[in-house]
Amino acid sequence: MAGRIDAKLKELGITLPPPAKPIATYVPFAVTGRLVVVSGQLPVQDGRIAFTGKLGESVTVEQGKESCRLCFINVLAQLREAAGGELDRVKQVLRLGGFIACVPGFTEHALVMNGASELCVAVFGDAGRHARTTIGVPALPADAATEVEALVELN
Amino acid sequence: MAGRIDAKLKELGITLPPPAKPIATYVPFAVTGRLVVVSGQLPVQDGRIAFTGKLGESVTVEQGKESCRLCFINVLAQLREAAGGELDRVKQVLRLGGFIACVPGFTEHALVMNGASELCVAVFGDAGRHARTTIGVPALPADAATEVEALVELN
Amino acid sequence: MAGRIDAKLKELGITLPPPAKPIATYVPFAVTGRLVVVSGQLPVQDGRIAFTGKLGESVTVEQGKESCRLCFINVLAQLREAAGGELDRVKQVLRLGGFIACVPGFTEHALVMNGASELCVAVFGDAGRHARTTIGVPALPADAATEVEALVELN
Repeated sequence: MAGRIDAKLKELGITLPPPAKPIATYVPFAVTGRLVVVSGQLPVQDGRIAFTGKLGESVTVEQGKESCRLCFINVLAQLREAAGGELDRVKQVLRLGGFIACVPGFTEHALVMNGASELCVAVFGDAGRHARTTIGVPALPADAATEVEALVELN
Repeated sequence: MAGRIDAKLKELGITLPPPAKPIATYVPFAVTGRLVVVSGQLPVQDGRIAFTGKLGESVTVEQGKESCRLCFINVLAQLREAAGGELDRVKQVLRLGGFIACVPGFTEHALVMNGASELCVAVFGDAGRHARTTIGVPALPADAATEVEALVELN
Repeated sequence: MAGRIDAKLKELGITLPPPAKPIATYVPFAVTGRLVVVSGQLPVQDGRIAFTGKLGESVTVEQGKESCRLCFINVLAQLREAAGGELDRVKQVLRLGGFIACVPGFTEHALVMNGASELCVAVFGDAGRHARTTIGVPALPADAATEVEALVELN
């Protein structure tokens, strides 16, 4: 049954992929009470990592932003699974953690991570207004350019 | 109405700034039940980042410690806002996350992060005794030297 | 009183050390309701850090995996303390955070962190199936090769 958020995703032209399988020994989300902890999601598209390399080197800010947006689409896919298929159950996105692979001289992490944050607010409205921590990292699993994790409260 | 913690801050000679505006598309804190998630705070003073650069390079351990202390003052400002102005409502600071911009050879992250942890305990006493994770990072948003996030339980 | 998990640890040949003292001004875990936040644990064995250096440089993937396993043994020691000595009270390991000190060209973070995740599942079974975020970092406190933090739900 399509809900309000499904309609919003359609309006935004976003089709959620099947939730990505973890690349190692863990699960893509864990639930305690009404809280969902979503594992760090890589910028996976059609089963492969679409953005590799580092910001300030081979990846532009615009590409990094796209990469974060894609990470967040994968967060959404996991979240839909966690919510039993009903994204309308999302009460509040509490926190996004953003990890930006970069060279030491890079400083535009906030702009890059906005690729995830802006989509989050576009999809969920006020329920998508989240706390956030964004940091640079020297390297991510599988040479991904970005990684995004989430903490979400369901109704 | 000034409370016990306000008095302690005065005793420590600390005036909380207005809570810093996020530098991007997110909110400075999110609340679920009695838990407050505070976004990563940079060492902002008078509207600008007071400590830039990296530990092990242009920033000394003492400066890094000051930077973490300043990050935590900004955490406090957000927390006061989250608690409706009453820092006495803080039941327990559960976790601080510390991010230290550094060169690969740097090893004194724990000392640097103590700038935040020591102030936390000075302000809140036992309620300020927190779990902590401190890591090095190659770069932070806006070239900040340090960043501190928090998870706090209110009464 | 030895429980089911104690028996499993014995079967795996693991003796938990006394919980490591924090190397700075904080506590090794904090509790809110049924949630335990475990501070980032370093690969400490017999009071010293057993794995130093960086992946992709002086530390092999196999050694990094051992290092993560050792970090998780220290997580277990803290967790047992948090659970009043009864690891059987662990309802679900919700999240592990893995921090891998590495050179910028390193990409095998997931394999390395499996050292923690595989032991977690071996010890707790389904209750050990956790969400996870793994990132590379340029340097960790005391030159540790890896660091692991945890969020756990108790019964």
